[in-house]
Amino acid sequence: LSLNLMAALTCSATNLGPLLAGASNATAAAEYICGRFDAVSNKFVDTAYAVDTTYLLFSAYLVFAMQLGFAMLCAGSVRAKNTMNIMLTNVLDAATGGIFYYLFGFAFAFGGPSNGFIGRHFFGLGTFPSPSFDYGYFLYQWAFAIAAAGITSGSIAERTQFVAYLIYSSFLTGLVYPIVSHWFWSADGWASPARADNLLFESGVIDFAGSGVVHLVGAIAGFWGAFIEGPRIGKFDHEGRSVLLRGHSGTLVVLGTFLLWFGWYGFNPGSFLNIFKTYGESGSFYGQWSAIGRTAVTTTLAGSSAALTTLFGKRLISGHWNVTDVCNGLLGGFAAITSGCAVVDPWAAIICGFVSAWVLIGCNKIAERFKYDDPLEAAQLHGGCGAWGIIFTALFATEAYVKEIYPGRPGRAYGLLMGGGGKLLAAHIVQILVITGWVSVTMGTLFGLLHKLKLLRISPDEEMAGMDLTSHGGLAYVYQDVDDAPMQKNSFMMA
Amino acid sequence: LSLNLMAALTCSATNLGPLLAGASNATAAAEYICGRFDAVSNKFVDTAYAVDTTYLLFSAYLVFAMQLGFAMLCAGSVRAKNTMNIMLTNVLDAATGGIFYYLFGFAFAFGGPSNGFIGRHFFGLGTFPSPSFDYGYFLYQWAFAIAAAGITSGSIAERTQFVAYLIYSSFLTGLVYPIVSHWFWSADGWASPARADNLLFESGVIDFAGSGVVHLVGAIAGFWGAFIEGPRIGKFDHEGRSVLLRGHSGTLVVLGTFLLWFGWYGFNPGSFLNIFKTYGESGSFYGQWSAIGRTAVTTTLAGSSAALTTLFGKRLISGHWNVTDVCNGLLGGFAAITSGCAVVDPWAAIICGFVSAWVLIGCNKIAERFKYDDPLEAAQLHGGCGAWGIIFTALFATEAYVKEIYPGRPGRAYGLLMGGGGKLLAAHIVQILVITGWVSVTMGTLFGLLHKLKLLRISPDEEMAGMDLTSHGGLAYVYQDVDDAPMQKNSFMMA
Amino acid sequence: LSLNLMAALTCSATNLGPLLAGASNATAAAEYICGRFDAVSNKFVDTAYAVDTTYLLFSAYLVFAMQLGFAMLCAGSVRAKNTMNIMLTNVLDAATGGIFYYLFGFAFAFGGPSNGFIGRHFFGLGTFPSPSFDYGYFLYQWAFAIAAAGITSGSIAERTQFVAYLIYSSFLTGLVYPIVSHWFWSADGWASPARADNLLFESGVIDFAGSGVVHLVGAIAGFWGAFIEGPRIGKFDHEGRSVLLRGHSGTLVVLGTFLLWFGWYGFNPGSFLNIFKTYGESGSFYGQWSAIGRTAVTTTLAGSSAALTTLFGKRLISGHWNVTDVCNGLLGGFAAITSGCAVVDPWAAIICGFVSAWVLIGCNKIAERFKYDDPLEAAQLHGGCGAWGIIFTALFATEAYVKEIYPGRPGRAYGLLMGGGGKLLAAHIVQILVITGWVSVTMGTLFGLLHKLKLLRISPDEEMAGMDLTSHGGLAYVYQDVDDAPMQKNSFMMA
Repeated sequence: LSLNLMAALTCSATNLGPLLAGASNATAAAEYICGRFDAVSNKFVDTAYAVDTTYLLFSAYLVFAMQLGFAMLCAGSVRAKNTMNIMLTNVLDAATGGIFYYLFGFAFAFGGPSNGFIGRHFFGLGTFPSPSFDYGYFLYQWAFAIAAAGITSGSIAERTQFVAYLIYSSFLTGLVYPIVSHWFWSADGWASPARADNLLFESGVIDFAGSGVVHLVGAIAGFWGAFIEGPRIGKFDHEGRSVLLRGHSGTLVVLGTFLLWFGWYGFNPGSFLNIFKTYGESGSFYGQWSAIGRTAVTTTLAGSSAALTTLFGKRLISGHWNVTDVCNGLLGGFAAITSGCAVVDPWAAIICGFVSAWVLIGCNKIAERFKYDDPLEAAQLHGGCGAWGIIFTALFATEAYVKEIYPGRPGRAYGLLMGGGGKLLAAHIVQILVITGWVSVTMGTLFGLLHKLKLLRISPDEEMAGMDLTSHGGLAYVYQDVDDAPMQKNSFMMA
Repeated sequence: LSLNLMAALTCSATNLGPLLAGASNATAAAEYICGRFDAVSNKFVDTAYAVDTTYLLFSAYLVFAMQLGFAMLCAGSVRAKNTMNIMLTNVLDAATGGIFYYLFGFAFAFGGPSNGFIGRHFFGLGTFPSPSFDYGYFLYQWAFAIAAAGITSGSIAERTQFVAYLIYSSFLTGLVYPIVSHWFWSADGWASPARADNLLFESGVIDFAGSGVVHLVGAIAGFWGAFIEGPRIGKFDHEGRSVLLRGHSGTLVVLGTFLLWFGWYGFNPGSFLNIFKTYGESGSFYGQWSAIGRTAVTTTLAGSSAALTTLFGKRLISGHWNVTDVCNGLLGGFAAITSGCAVVDPWAAIICGFVSAWVLIGCNKIAERFKYDDPLEAAQLHGGCGAWGIIFTALFATEAYVKEIYPGRPGRAYGLLMGGGGKLLAAHIVQILVITGWVSVTMGTLFGLLHKLKLLRISPDEEMAGMDLTSHGGLAYVYQDVDDAPMQKNSFMMA
Repeated sequence: LSLNLMAALTCSATNLGPLLAGASNATAAAEYICGRFDAVSNKFVDTAYAVDTTYLLFSAYLVFAMQLGFAMLCAGSVRAKNTMNIMLTNVLDAATGGIFYYLFGFAFAFGGPSNGFIGRHFFGLGTFPSPSFDYGYFLYQWAFAIAAAGITSGSIAERTQFVAYLIYSSFLTGLVYPIVSHWFWSADGWASPARADNLLFESGVIDFAGSGVVHLVGAIAGFWGAFIEGPRIGKFDHEGRSVLLRGHSGTLVVLGTFLLWFGWYGFNPGSFLNIFKTYGESGSFYGQWSAIGRTAVTTTLAGSSAALTTLFGKRLISGHWNVTDVCNGLLGGFAAITSGCAVVDPWAAIICGFVSAWVLIGCNKIAERFKYDDPLEAAQLHGGCGAWGIIFTALFATEAYVKEIYPGRPGRAYGLLMGGGGKLLAAHIVQILVITGWVSVTMGTLFGLLHKLKLLRISPDEEMAGMDLTSHGGLAYVYQDVDDAPMQKNSFMMA
C-alpha cells in the first residue's frame, strides 16, 4: 500500500516541536498539527482500500464473465446433441469451484506461510479479512480457479461420462490448480518472483496472469483426458484422415470469443490487484495505472495480431476466410500474452501474437497427424500458445517494467533478447516442465484410473445419440410446429 | 460520507492559535495552517464522491445487464413461437421503466420526507442532484425497478395479451413497486431499518438488496396473473398430469443465467451504494470495502450451494443431470441470499443456498399439484426462495455486520440463531405478509379486472399459433433455403 | 487534473515562515509543515490518476462490449447464410483496428500539436505515456474507432466481397475516422470546442460522444457502399415494392441491442474521460461525478423515449408490436443523444428520443422510396438520427452544463432554444456538412473505385448461395441428425 509514499507525509511532533519552541506551547502545537497529518495519512489508506477494492472487484466480475464466454464458445463448438452437457460443465465449474475454493482451494493456493509447495491457512476463509487478504482477493482468485477446469472440459467434450467430469473437475479445481498457483503466485511459493530469498535461478518465474498457471494447467489436464479416451466416433475416417465435425453454431463461437476478450481485460490488467500505487515519486503521471493501461494494450495487440495472422495464414492454407479459426487464433494470442502482458512493450505483444498464431496452426497439424481429437483445440490453444507465451516473456520482458512490478531486488533478470540474460528463460523452461510433469502425474493418473474403472468414456450408443438425450433429459433446442404439435423427434432436426 | 473520519482531520485555528502564541502572528499562522487542512478535508469529500460514484455507476450498469439476462432466460424458456413477445416485454420493461421512474416512480420511492407510506418529492428529478441524491443513485434504483416487472412477465408468458402487459407493467413499475421500496428502503419508510424512530419491532426490516422488495413483489404479481389466466393449453393432460412444455433453447437459458449471475454482483454488493467508508477507525484494512467483497462472496456461495444441491437433488428425483434445473436452482439461491447477503457470514450463505434449492423443488411440486402453470417457475423461484431468504436473514444476521451497516442504534436486533432475539424475525414475517397483501390487493385486483374486461388472456387460436405470428409481425427465427427461396412457413419449422 | 483545487492546498513556507517568527526555527518549521502539505498534494495527484484510470478503463471495456453487440445485432439481422461473413467483419474491425490504431490511427487523431487537420505524433505509441495521454486513453479511443467500421459493414451486408471489406475498413479505421476525430475532439482540431483560439463561430462543435464523429461517419460511408452496389437480390419485387428480407434471428437482434445499450454507458458517460473533477468549489456534492451520472440518465431516457415512440408509431403504421423496430428505434435514440448527452437536461433527452424515432421512420420511408437497401438500416439509423442529434444539441444545450464541461471561455454559445444564440447551431450545421463531404469524397471515391475494379459486389450466384458457403468455409449452423448422420445439406435447412 505505497508505504514509501506515506513516508513523506509522516509528521513527527518530536521533530516539529523543537522547531516551534518559543511558541507558548510548542509541544502541543506540534502534536496538534501532526495529529492532523496522521489523520490525513490514515484517510489515504482508506482511499487506497476503496479504490483498489473497486478496481479488483470489477476486474473479478470481468474474469467471471469469461465463464459465460467459455460456456458459449464450448456450446457453439460441439454438435447440437451435446450442448446441454458441455454447458452444464461450465455452470458447475463455477458452482463447484465456489464451494471447494472456499473450503480449501484458496487455503492451498495462498495460505502462507507455507513450505513453498502448498498453503495451509485460511480454510473456509477463517481469519478473513486480514491485512494481507480481503474478500475481493478471494473472489478474484476464485474466478481464475474456475477457468482452468473450463479449458479441460473443452478437450474431452462430446464423449466423457458426466460422473468423470464431476470427479476430475473437483480434483483439478480443488487441489491440482491451487497447488500450482501456490508455487508461482503465492509470496512464498518455491518459484515465485516475490519470494524473500532463494529465488529460482535468482529470478523466479514471471507468469503475470497465468499462461502457465491457468492455461497450461488446463491444457495438460485436457490433453491427458482426450488422449486416454481417444477421438470421437467419426473424427477420423477409414483411411485415417481427419473429418471436420463442425460445431453446431458459429454465432455462439463468436459470442463466446468476444465475451472472453471482454473478460480478459479483467484477467490480465486485473492481475495487478491494485491500481493506487506509484512507481518512484508521488505526483507523477506515470504509475501503476499506466502499467495497467499498458497491459490492456499489450493484451489487445497480441490478440489482434494473432487474429490477423490466422486470417491470412488460414486463407493461404485452406482457401477461405474462416471466422472460427480467427476466433481460435485470437484466443491463442490472448493465452500467449497472459504471461508477459505486464512486462513487455506493445510492439513485442504484436510479435507475441504473430508467433502464437503459427504455434496454434502447427499444434493443430501435429494433433491431426497423431489422431488426437480435441473438439475445441483447447490443449493446442491453451497448451501450445500458453507455453509459447511463457517463453516469450523470458525473451521480451523489459528491465524497467520488471523492476517496477517486482521491486526491491536490484539486478533482477529480465528478457534474454532485451539484454537481461538467460536466467529468466531458465526459470520459465522449468515452469513449463514442472507444470507439465505435475499435471501429467496427477491428472494423467486420475484419467487413467477413471479409464480403468470404465468411468471415463460413454458408450458408442450414447455417443451416437448424444449426451443431452441420454444423460441430461433432452436436447437443447426444441422448435415446435406452428400448430403446437410437438415435432416428431421433439426437436427441429430432420428425419 | 464518513463524517466521523473527517472529525480527526478538522483543524481549528481557535485551538491551534493559542498554542502558537509567541510566534509573530500566531493567529494568522494557525489560520494559514488550518486553511490548508480544510482544503485537504474538502478534497477528500471530492475523492469520496468520485470513488463512490464510480462504484455505484458501474454497479448500476451490471444491474442493467440483468435485464439482458432476463430477456435471454425468458426467451430460451418459452417455445419458439412466443420468443419475440417475451423479449419485447423485457426491452419495454427497461424503456417504460426509464420514463415512468423518471416522471414519478423515483419520487414515490425515495421522495422523502414522507408519511412513511409513499414519497412525494423529486418528480421528474426536480432539484436533482441534492446532497442526498445524485443521478447515479437514480440510475441504480431504476435498474432495480425494471427487474420486478421482468419477473412477472415470466410467470404469465405465452398466453397474455400484449395490451395487458403494457397496463400491468406500467402499474407495477410506476406505483406498486416504488411504494414497497419506499417502505423498506427509504430513510423514512415505515419499516425501514434506517428510520430515526418508531422502528418496526424496534428493528426495522433488513432486506438489504431486495429478496422481498424486488423478488417477492415480482413473484406475487406474477402469481396472480398466472393464477387468474390459468395454465397454457396442453400444460396438463386429460388426466391432469403435468406435461413438460420445454423452452426452445437451453443455450439461451444458460446465457441468461450467467448474465444474471454477472449482474447480481451489481445487485447485491452494489446495494451498499458507496465503498469509501470506514467502520470504526480510519487507516484500518477492514472497512466497507471488505463488507462489499464479503457480500460478493456470500452471493457466490449461496448460488453455488443451491446449484449443486439442485444438481444432485434433481438427479435423485428425475434420474438425469439437468442444466435448466441447475440454472433455476442457482437463481433461486441468488434470490434468497439477496436479502441477507451483507449481514451474514459466508458459511451461512451455503446453508441459505442449500435450503433454497429444496424450497424451489418443493414449490414446484406444489405448483404441479395445484395445476399452477408458470413457464419460468418465476413465482416459485422469486417468491418461494425470496420468502425463504427473508426468513433466513432474520435467523442468521450477525451482530457485528448489522451494527456496521445500520449503525448508531445500540441494542439493535439481529439473527435469532445468532443470539439476536426474535424481533428481527417478527419484522421479517411482517414484511412477507405486508408485501403479499399489498401486491395481492393491487396487482391481483388489476389482473382480475383485466380478466373481466377480456383483456388478459389471448384466444386459444392465438395461443396455438403463437403470439409472434399473431401480434408481433412474425417469428423470431427465419432460416431460409440455400437457394434463397423463402421457406414454406417463413421459418425453419417443419410441415 | 483539477489544478484549481490544488491551489487552496498549496503551502508556502515563504508565507508561513514569517507568521511563525519568534519560534526557535520558524523557517524550518514552516518548511517542515509545508513539505507535508506538498506530499499530501502529490498524493491527491496519484489518487486522481488511480481513480480516473479506473473509471476510464472500465468505460473502455464497456465500449468494447459494443463490438460484441454489433456482431450479434448484425448476425441476427442478416439471413442465416451470411452470418459467418458479417460476424467475421465485426471480429476483424476490432483486430485490424487494434493494429492500425496503434501504428498510426491514434497519431492521426490525437497527435497534437498539429495543423488542425491531422495529427502527427505518437505513431506506434512512441513517447507513451505522457502527461497528456496514458495507455488507458488510447484503449478508450481505439474502442471508439472500431465502432465506426461496424456501422458501415451493416449497410453493405450480404452482398459485399470480403476483400472489399478488408480494404474499406482499413481505410476508414486507419485514416478517414481518425482525421474526423482530430477535427472535433483533439485539442487543436479546427472545429474543436477546446481550441485555445479561432473557435469555429466562436464556439466550436460540441459533439460530446460522437453522434457526428462516430455515427455519421460510419453511416455516410455505409450509405455510399450500399448505394453504389445497389440492393440485394430480391429486395425489391418486379413492381418495385420493397420485400421484407427478414434477418434470421430476432433473439440475436435483442441480444445485440441490449449489449449496445450496456456498452453505451461506457460510450457516453465515459467520454468525460475522468470523474475526479470538481466544478467550482471543492467539497461540494456537485461535480463531474454528477454530470457523468446525468449523462447516463439522459442516455437512458433518450433511448427509452425513442423505443416507446417507435413501439406505438409502428403499431399505428403496421398493425403489430414489433420488437426489431423497437430495438432499432432505441438505438436511434442512443445515436441521437450521443452528441448532446452531457450538456442537456433529462427532459430534453426525452424530446431527443421522441423526434429521433420519427426521424428513423421517415428515413426508412425515404430509403424504401428510392430503393436504397440497407440490411441493418444503419445509414438511416446512425446517419439520420446522428444528424438529428447534432442539431438537437445545438438547440437544447444548457448554458450551465456547457460552461462546466468546456470551461474558461465566458460568453460561450449554447443551445438556441435555451437562449444561447445561433452560433452553436451554425457550427453544428457545418459539422454535418463537413463530415458528409469528407466521408463522401474519401469513402465514396473508394467504393466507386472498388466497384470499377469489380472488387465490390459478389456475383449473383454467390449471393444466392450465401457468402458463408462460398467464402467462409461453411454455414454458421450445423444441426445434425440424432443418429449422427450429417444432414443432407450439412445444415438444418429444408429441402
